Amino acid sequence: MSHLSGNPQGPRVAVILSGCGYLDGAEINEAVISLLALNRGGAQVRCYAPDKPQMHVVDHLTGQPSPGESRNVLRESARIARGQIAPLSELSADDFDALFMPGGFGVAKNLSTFAVDGTSGQVDPDLARVLKEFRDAGKPIGAVCISPAVLVLALGEGEVTIGSDPGTAGAIESLGGVHHVCPVDDIHVDTRRRIVTAPAFMEDVQLATVADGIEKAVAATLELVAGR
Amino acid sequence: MSHLSGNPQGPRVAVILSGCGYLDGAEINEAVISLLALNRGGAQVRCYAPDKPQMHVVDHLTGQPSPGESRNVLRESARIARGQIAPLSELSADDFDALFMPGGFGVAKNLSTFAVDGTSGQVDPDLARVLKEFRDAGKPIGAVCISPAVLVLALGEGEVTIGSDPGTAGAIESLGGVHHVCPVDDIHVDTRRRIVTAPAFMEDVQLATVADGIEKAVAATLELVAGR
Repeated sequence: MSHLSGNPQGPRVAVILSGCGYLDGAEINEAVISLLALNRGGAQVRCYAPDKPQMHVVDHLTGQPSPGESRNVLRESARIARGQIAPLSELSADDFDALFMPGGFGVAKNLSTFAVDGTSGQVDPDLARVLKEFRDAGKPIGAVCISPAVLVLALGEGEVTIGSDPGTAGAIESLGGVHHVCPVDDIHVDTRRRIVTAPAFMEDVQLATVADGIEKAVAATLELVAGR
Repeated sequence: MSHLSGNPQGPRVAVILSGCGYLDGAEINEAVISLLALNRGGAQVRCYAPDKPQMHVVDHLTGQPSPGESRNVLRESARIARGQIAPLSELSADDFDALFMPGGFGVAKNLSTFAVDGTSGQVDPDLARVLKEFRDAGKPIGAVCISPAVLVLALGEGEVTIGSDPGTAGAIESLGGVHHVCPVDDIHVDTRRRIVTAPAFMEDVQLATVADGIEKAVAATLELVAGR
């Protein structure tokens, strides 16, 4: 396993990114806020992303797809991680104490086909394997924004947040999960399954409000690792 | 002027981005940490970037340029700003109380030619105009990472930080500025010229340390606006 950054005595947390930009990849603000909270929380962190093409590329000025343009999820995620990132295929739960997933449409477009196929969507095989490894090992999983929906799509269970979007909440319920309505500055902890979730930019709110929720989610994930 | 986000009673701060990714654009972590600190500090924010091609595109996984690939600075910056961004040509100091510039190689590659031409480099004409407008109006300017060097390149003056890189420090001095050695978690305030600077990722340090410095720089910039 590659070098981890952060406190060498701290809990080891794998962070999964899905590109760079909320319309076709990872939500950049959520990713940075997560990485900063993990660093301030004393964790060791390693970022991972799938080494494959994005579903598509979206012009973030217009919100429209850019036909003919292609970008690689791992290479774009490396922009956020300053190059300190490895292919998702190399991630094993054996090497970590917890997993954390920021959001962005990339989770529903590159880490799964949820954005296109909804409840009949497919989860990236490496992500599905990784989520099951952490679940089966009883290691905490933190997931914000749209990530909780894909987590339930992969695992078929979980009490999670999605904000207040009724369509996605309904999808979670039909996949075997339980949806908890939750304000953006708060979190829900499924203590039995050791899953921590927060809505983040599923709602159109201030950046500070999103950060409040993500910082609580990171703290709760690290507390589960510590057994508190 | 377009809609500003944040506290509608707060000080109005323009943030200049230079792309999306530290090797060919804005340093993503610095940009998000700046925007979050401004939001938590009660400011109204509007992001700006030049509407022109990047100097080049760098693969952030390998660190090598991607020949033949082209990206637009404004469209890539929009990934960080979630689309809430305007062309730098539209920025007028009349509409704002302060200016803030995160770093990244984009400042030296897209906002100027400092990365290629050093002290004989050219500053983007809109950026040069904007910096002079804020300076002439006595409105505070915050600048982190490599941005202080380009600020001195544009204005020919300023007591600023750059971390401890002797080459860049020498360039600042030869351009008419004064370099202050400064640890990454701290800042320097040129009170006479109302310029606040911090080294950020000019040094290879932990994300939390960079955030400590940027948060202080944002706070000091807002304090200058408030006249404290």
